[in-house]
Amino acid sequence: MIKIAMLGSGFIARFYADSIQGYRSQDKIVSVYSRKNESAEKFSKDYNVNHATTNMEEAIAHSDVDLVCVALPNNLHEEAVMLCCKYKKAVMVTKPLGRNAAEAKRMLEAAEKAGIFNGYLEDLVYTPKFLKAFETVKSGGLGRILWAKSRETHPGPHSDWFWDIEQAGGGCILDLGCHCVEISRSYIGKDIKPIEVMCWADTQVKPIDAEDHAIGLVKYENGAIGQFEVSWTFRGGLDLRDEVMGTEGTIWINNFLRTGFEMFTTGKGGDYIAEKAESNTGWLFPVGDELNELGYNHMFMDMFNSLENKNQPKESFYDGYIVNAVLDAAYRSAKSKLWEPVQLEIWRGKEGVSKDNHLTSYDDGHYLIKEEMTHYGPKKVILKNKQSGKIVEKITG
Amino acid sequence: MIKIAMLGSGFIARFYADSIQGYRSQDKIVSVYSRKNESAEKFSKDYNVNHATTNMEEAIAHSDVDLVCVALPNNLHEEAVMLCCKYKKAVMVTKPLGRNAAEAKRMLEAAEKAGIFNGYLEDLVYTPKFLKAFETVKSGGLGRILWAKSRETHPGPHSDWFWDIEQAGGGCILDLGCHCVEISRSYIGKDIKPIEVMCWADTQVKPIDAEDHAIGLVKYENGAIGQFEVSWTFRGGLDLRDEVMGTEGTIWINNFLRTGFEMFTTGKGGDYIAEKAESNTGWLFPVGDELNELGYNHMFMDMFNSLENKNQPKESFYDGYIVNAVLDAAYRSAKSKLWEPVQLEIWRGKEGVSKDNHLTSYDDGHYLIKEEMTHYGPKKVILKNKQSGKIVEKITG
Amino acid sequence: MIKIAMLGSGFIARFYADSIQGYRSQDKIVSVYSRKNESAEKFSKDYNVNHATTNMEEAIAHSDVDLVCVALPNNLHEEAVMLCCKYKKAVMVTKPLGRNAAEAKRMLEAAEKAGIFNGYLEDLVYTPKFLKAFETVKSGGLGRILWAKSRETHPGPHSDWFWDIEQAGGGCILDLGCHCVEISRSYIGKDIKPIEVMCWADTQVKPIDAEDHAIGLVKYENGAIGQFEVSWTFRGGLDLRDEVMGTEGTIWINNFLRTGFEMFTTGKGGDYIAEKAESNTGWLFPVGDELNELGYNHMFMDMFNSLENKNQPKESFYDGYIVNAVLDAAYRSAKSKLWEPVQLEIWRGKEGVSKDNHLTSYDDGHYLIKEEMTHYGPKKVILKNKQSGKIVEKITG
Amino acid sequence: MIKIAMLGSGFIARFYADSIQGYRSQDKIVSVYSRKNESAEKFSKDYNVNHATTNMEEAIAHSDVDLVCVALPNNLHEEAVMLCCKYKKAVMVTKPLGRNAAEAKRMLEAAEKAGIFNGYLEDLVYTPKFLKAFETVKSGGLGRILWAKSRETHPGPHSDWFWDIEQAGGGCILDLGCHCVEISRSYIGKDIKPIEVMCWADTQVKPIDAEDHAIGLVKYENGAIGQFEVSWTFRGGLDLRDEVMGTEGTIWINNFLRTGFEMFTTGKGGDYIAEKAESNTGWLFPVGDELNELGYNHMFMDMFNSLENKNQPKESFYDGYIVNAVLDAAYRSAKSKLWEPVQLEIWRGKEGVSKDNHLTSYDDGHYLIKEEMTHYGPKKVILKNKQSGKIVEKITG
Repeated sequence: MIKIAMLGSGFIARFYADSIQGYRSQDKIVSVYSRKNESAEKFSKDYNVNHATTNMEEAIAHSDVDLVCVALPNNLHEEAVMLCCKYKKAVMVTKPLGRNAAEAKRMLEAAEKAGIFNGYLEDLVYTPKFLKAFETVKSGGLGRILWAKSRETHPGPHSDWFWDIEQAGGGCILDLGCHCVEISRSYIGKDIKPIEVMCWADTQVKPIDAEDHAIGLVKYENGAIGQFEVSWTFRGGLDLRDEVMGTEGTIWINNFLRTGFEMFTTGKGGDYIAEKAESNTGWLFPVGDELNELGYNHMFMDMFNSLENKNQPKESFYDGYIVNAVLDAAYRSAKSKLWEPVQLEIWRGKEGVSKDNHLTSYDDGHYLIKEEMTHYGPKKVILKNKQSGKIVEKITG
Repeated sequence: MIKIAMLGSGFIARFYADSIQGYRSQDKIVSVYSRKNESAEKFSKDYNVNHATTNMEEAIAHSDVDLVCVALPNNLHEEAVMLCCKYKKAVMVTKPLGRNAAEAKRMLEAAEKAGIFNGYLEDLVYTPKFLKAFETVKSGGLGRILWAKSRETHPGPHSDWFWDIEQAGGGCILDLGCHCVEISRSYIGKDIKPIEVMCWADTQVKPIDAEDHAIGLVKYENGAIGQFEVSWTFRGGLDLRDEVMGTEGTIWINNFLRTGFEMFTTGKGGDYIAEKAESNTGWLFPVGDELNELGYNHMFMDMFNSLENKNQPKESFYDGYIVNAVLDAAYRSAKSKLWEPVQLEIWRGKEGVSKDNHLTSYDDGHYLIKEEMTHYGPKKVILKNKQSGKIVEKITG
Repeated sequence: MIKIAMLGSGFIARFYADSIQGYRSQDKIVSVYSRKNESAEKFSKDYNVNHATTNMEEAIAHSDVDLVCVALPNNLHEEAVMLCCKYKKAVMVTKPLGRNAAEAKRMLEAAEKAGIFNGYLEDLVYTPKFLKAFETVKSGGLGRILWAKSRETHPGPHSDWFWDIEQAGGGCILDLGCHCVEISRSYIGKDIKPIEVMCWADTQVKPIDAEDHAIGLVKYENGAIGQFEVSWTFRGGLDLRDEVMGTEGTIWINNFLRTGFEMFTTGKGGDYIAEKAESNTGWLFPVGDELNELGYNHMFMDMFNSLENKNQPKESFYDGYIVNAVLDAAYRSAKSKLWEPVQLEIWRGKEGVSKDNHLTSYDDGHYLIKEEMTHYGPKKVILKNKQSGKIVEKITG
Repeated sequence: MIKIAMLGSGFIARFYADSIQGYRSQDKIVSVYSRKNESAEKFSKDYNVNHATTNMEEAIAHSDVDLVCVALPNNLHEEAVMLCCKYKKAVMVTKPLGRNAAEAKRMLEAAEKAGIFNGYLEDLVYTPKFLKAFETVKSGGLGRILWAKSRETHPGPHSDWFWDIEQAGGGCILDLGCHCVEISRSYIGKDIKPIEVMCWADTQVKPIDAEDHAIGLVKYENGAIGQFEVSWTFRGGLDLRDEVMGTEGTIWINNFLRTGFEMFTTGKGGDYIAEKAESNTGWLFPVGDELNELGYNHMFMDMFNSLENKNQPKESFYDGYIVNAVLDAAYRSAKSKLWEPVQLEIWRGKEGVSKDNHLTSYDDGHYLIKEEMTHYGPKKVILKNKQSGKIVEKITG
């Protein structure tokens, strides 16, 4: 049994609490901190939490607390982590880790220096679909990974602080891109270095200083490409999809809007309000168990098991730092309009990976380009002469 | 914390154990019974169970055991339940409850007489999609329910005893229809009496005595229709779909083959074997978290919470008995080719429900049939004269 | 070039005309008959038709006319056909052919006696998806066909006469079931005799004398089962789906609501009205080219080519008669609650087809039930002893 | 009736011929040119063409010919067009128009100087789904268009010349990107100037000199973004999807792999070979009527109607030129790694379009950021102070 202090009491803190205390869990939130007293009180009542406070240090220092869960606006992450270091409390932080790589690096170094457990709450690499797809990719089911795209777009976040660039540190790139970058990176290989980033970003709709729509390409050292598509201007709900291309296969994942649950209602029947949907009549696409589908359950299971078994969790501050460094390059690129290098002062993966030679020999003189059935029956191959480079077709029977 | 004896160590017992002891659960299997010693040993090692035995009574009687989970072939359910009654142990039984309503009734009556907790492990009314859909239906989002269909078809069960009519008690009607009947019944209303059943069944493919394909209609007292489609001859994987029609809406649920996870593999990449799929190359449709998607987690959560809180679980022996009674009528109908009455010696729902008058008055003289846009612009209504019954069209602007 | 007289000027006549004169067609409507003068005038202007009349005989007898297209309410089909016989004009009739088999038989016999071309306009066995699926089925891609279901449900027809049982001859069974029966019959084999029908029908919602919801099973002589699901009470648009099960495969076709075209609109943007949809905001599912997707183009191509080449079209009055005979049995069954025999006074397919022996021998002593991978690695087979009937499992490596 | 000379007799020429002479068409191919005699003969026999030749000029000059259809490798387009100018024959050219904008411009200028009809055979803006979606976009159903993506990926083209950079002029960018660019441009507005392009391209798999995978962003003068994703390395069939985001809505189109036709086959049943699919067992996703779904029918209808009515077709050489100019910028960008300007020496659309001010005033002092339901019931708005820029939340009831 793990005893947790929850810092924050808003939308995401409640999602976390539902997951941590849901099902038949042995774990328990024992303290809650919120900036507003009413909010702390409400949370402690709803989740049956003994200790509620508006003093962050008090929640962290509380003697019952084993593990601190940081579910605060981005600009408060560093302060919270430093206090955990001070009190040697295990800590896990919501996404993104920092507002930029400098903040993330300071948190990573402080936590490691203090020797405390540090987890990075990137739920979307813990969704059941991701976990199964990842296993397939790792076992080679898709061959060599060429491209991994992740898309998260919706009509904009729920809380005011997201829209304030000072508190949030950025717009939809930071809010949503952090998920997408870690998803792509996981498929391509977390030990493969992200090298450079090209990003387009614009404020197309909302009256804000940060971007509300962005698309980015992340080039990895082995030649693979990560792609993110993020927006706060999408109409139709929460669009959460991944696509992976490998030399031997393809994976398409839809996490939210098309999961095999379809519903039409005239709206005359009852008061049904669909969560997060933009409408509550017509065709709706609910998700069965959001907590599980969005990865919260498997994420906390990994965190708590890792803490108990003294392992690294799958996602640690180090991963949060890498993601921030990639996003920093994305922001620089959106301004400079250039491919910007990913600046990694800390890197623990492979170095100097080159693009392999992947040519397939057909016979001594030729490489194979493609094999296929002709319209009129026989099989043919399209070949390239190894010396001359000439392309030829050959009927093979 | 609840301590469980697992009776059985096969396919379904392992699914149950994965769910019961998965995640961060506080509950624990403390004894396992299997007919074969090796199997009991293997199970106890895999799931870290202290006590393994080939003596059913010993497992049930074991002093650590709070709750007995019956995951045995159908012909052994009654024996197991009677022993639980003897030792006053709480019990939950896999589906179907009995091989027929007579067996189910004896179990229900014995358990109630012994005053023990009795749960019926009908996982498919606990899937996250069902739970959310059900909530919508109950809140009126679909209006009055007219028809609820559930379909479960696949290429046949894994264990030999299913194919033996003596042990199983029947074929795919009993094995799969028990799910479908309870799903439809839940949408239509568990307090509405099932009245009669028409069923077609045949052995179209397999060399067995039981049916391998069947379709049935179940008429309820309020005029609603339940439908089941079951088969052991389906090609393409596990097809698990529900459809509900109401006066104000529609729900379509796909629990397995189309859940937003699509994958293509040439098979050259690796050794990936897709579970339960019929192939491991080409387009595959994995499910992320089968335990959760198939309802096991929410089912055991309800069972264990109910046991602790001394509530009825959502599904009890009573429900298992009703389902068996409906299936008995289905078997009779498949033979007699008649609509066969559902014989319910125990019924705890509403009596004498009639089909309501659901006509919509348009004005004093007319009922409304339909309102729609014409091709050329104006709206029109189609009406029926209350006296003469004459159908007329009227442009309304 | 074929010159056509169109009888009727309503919804379906316009669909037909769009298809016949659309694209780069060589064919032309030269005369139009309507019961209402304004309607005849409007149609002749819209489709550039030289001759418009309120006298049916005049349209049919018109010297330019090669072929008569009957797009009238069901109760007027027979009169129109008899006039075509009188003037020896080729004729094609919209679905259903008659209000019952007696009407259909009279039309069939009159047309054959007169020696005129007779086509039955069953568009849904001409949809591009059906045509391709049918080819696959005929070439054996699905093995032996076990079950073929067709579903057509929507919120009710557009014109008033459909709702009047005298003019229409029935409700949704006749209106929609005629499609479903011919689709199932085509997959199972048009030379296989439909033997008997079990049908449930009810008037669940609408203030009409005919049924607004029905489900039926049609048993064929070779043991295959056709199924129809029809309703005028469905909410959500036009649900048009087929499912076919064979011993070696499965086909699922969605003709309307899920065809790869998905759209969300807040409705603030513009005046877009989605055709046949129940709403014009939220998630909508338009069809690209309805004329082609619903089979009209390929149907008329077959009719016109057949007429020119003096062939039988794929669908003739004979097929319309068989369908009416099946639906007559469905209506009888809905009343008698019995499986009702299909009464076929004219039958031109195979006679005395029996259910084949389809058992697969595994070795001299056993039939094969199922082959599968075990959880722990090796393959196993489930077998049935040919003598004793005993079921056994055997590990095969 | 239009009489056509077909230049080319390969894969695409046959697709064109199937469409032009399919259905009940009034039009006819009267001459065919091929580089190989056998191929010309075979084509003339298959399509019932009177005149076959290996002399391109002879086919074009043939006195029966009204219109020349150029279905040749890219490097032969210019020669063919120049001959059409010489003989004043109407001409339509397959995609891409040229290997680059310089070639395209010469063809455009020559055709306009000669005063001949010139059509650009961009079939994918004529698919039934595109046409319907486009209509919706034009009528404002999606509000202001922010982003339009088109994706075409497959396992590589059928003919050898595609793989030879000299004949083809490029790799998948030129082959597939030409479609994607014109699709995006159509949704965003063909009168809106494409300004600059950022493109990543690589040769990840195939032993060729050209790119086999590329992703590009095209920025338009009004701030909208076009995106293309193209590859010859995709596994799983032909992936052909469009996505459009507007301020008031979203459109998703799937033209090929998921169109409502799903099939499973063990392969034991028959010899079914699925066209263009990578496998012929397991789950397959056929398309009903490829000719219609891929836009050929509606494209030729527009071309032929335009020629007869002396109108511009929807797609002319001018459009082909714009597309080539965008792709030239993409190729430059893939090398320079910079956003490259689109160099348009000919431009007939709007000039100097600026990004509009799209802010929504909530009240005198605030802009509206977002309106939503809170978890606890009341509605709230998130606002931005017009003066201070401060973000605030307000409960509105």
